[in-house]
Amino acid sequence: MSHEPRLTVALRNLLQSQRIGALGTISEDGAPYVSMVPYALAPSHGCLVIHVSGLAAHTCNLQARPRVSLLVMQSEVPGKPVHALPRVTVAGLARVLTPSGRDWQKCKAAYLARFPEAKPMTQLGDFMFVAVEVGSARHVAGFGTARSIDDEEVKRALGPPG
Amino acid sequence: MSHEPRLTVALRNLLQSQRIGALGTISEDGAPYVSMVPYALAPSHGCLVIHVSGLAAHTCNLQARPRVSLLVMQSEVPGKPVHALPRVTVAGLARVLTPSGRDWQKCKAAYLARFPEAKPMTQLGDFMFVAVEVGSARHVAGFGTARSIDDEEVKRALGPPG
Repeated sequence: MSHEPRLTVALRNLLQSQRIGALGTISEDGAPYVSMVPYALAPSHGCLVIHVSGLAAHTCNLQARPRVSLLVMQSEVPGKPVHALPRVTVAGLARVLTPSGRDWQKCKAAYLARFPEAKPMTQLGDFMFVAVEVGSARHVAGFGTARSIDDEEVKRALGPPG
Repeated sequence: MSHEPRLTVALRNLLQSQRIGALGTISEDGAPYVSMVPYALAPSHGCLVIHVSGLAAHTCNLQARPRVSLLVMQSEVPGKPVHALPRVTVAGLARVLTPSGRDWQKCKAAYLARFPEAKPMTQLGDFMFVAVEVGSARHVAGFGTARSIDDEEVKRALGPPG
């Protein structure tokens, strides 16, 4: 029987059940920019993994300004209220991975395990894997349940049940 | 029969079918911050309407730095691929509305028409309506269909079929 706090379990369920996040980066002119990114979990590296095109605005942004924000929301259900939908905003630091790096292979494997259909894209030269190292987060588990959490709890939620 | 371009219709359908967006703002320390916001369409004002708490981080952010980014994504479907999900990133300018302003009543009405369940929240003193005036956008209608569009097309997509 798990002795994990209920809200840590809820956060893990959210991150595992959803596959897309809203990535916030800063444009060259200082404006925020939010774009969709499919993500995978790489618990042993304390990060999330995304796969982005070198031609995309978010990629230029995160290469120049690596502080990012990633929002994962439970999908809305037509006809059901949305205001209390579970979601989490994770502060992150983006780090472009290179094939010669020690965690590239594992992060690529985590991504392709979740998104086998993305394999053809990984063979295009202009795409790259990026680790989003997780920091603190704002977690809304439901109505009246908003809390700020530290990076250690986010990392626990990335991994298997404790 | 409508003579609107197919992609404008697709964008309208996306904005009308979804109710939540991912709002990107800039924190005081310069980091991006992405949070969930339910939104309504206010086509006669060329804006989207959100309703935010004065206690929330995104509200402080947008009051101090009104350039925002709003991502609306079609919900993912379990078991179905996510990479080509329709979505749009709209560049916006946030403007806090005041009850004495000329568009407050109409924007409030648009919001409550979409979210009647939010009425109790509108009676709390620390919430406010914010107009997100739409600028240019990046629209991905599906696989291989990514395009940049100007504010005029976004405004047309906010309104009724032309």
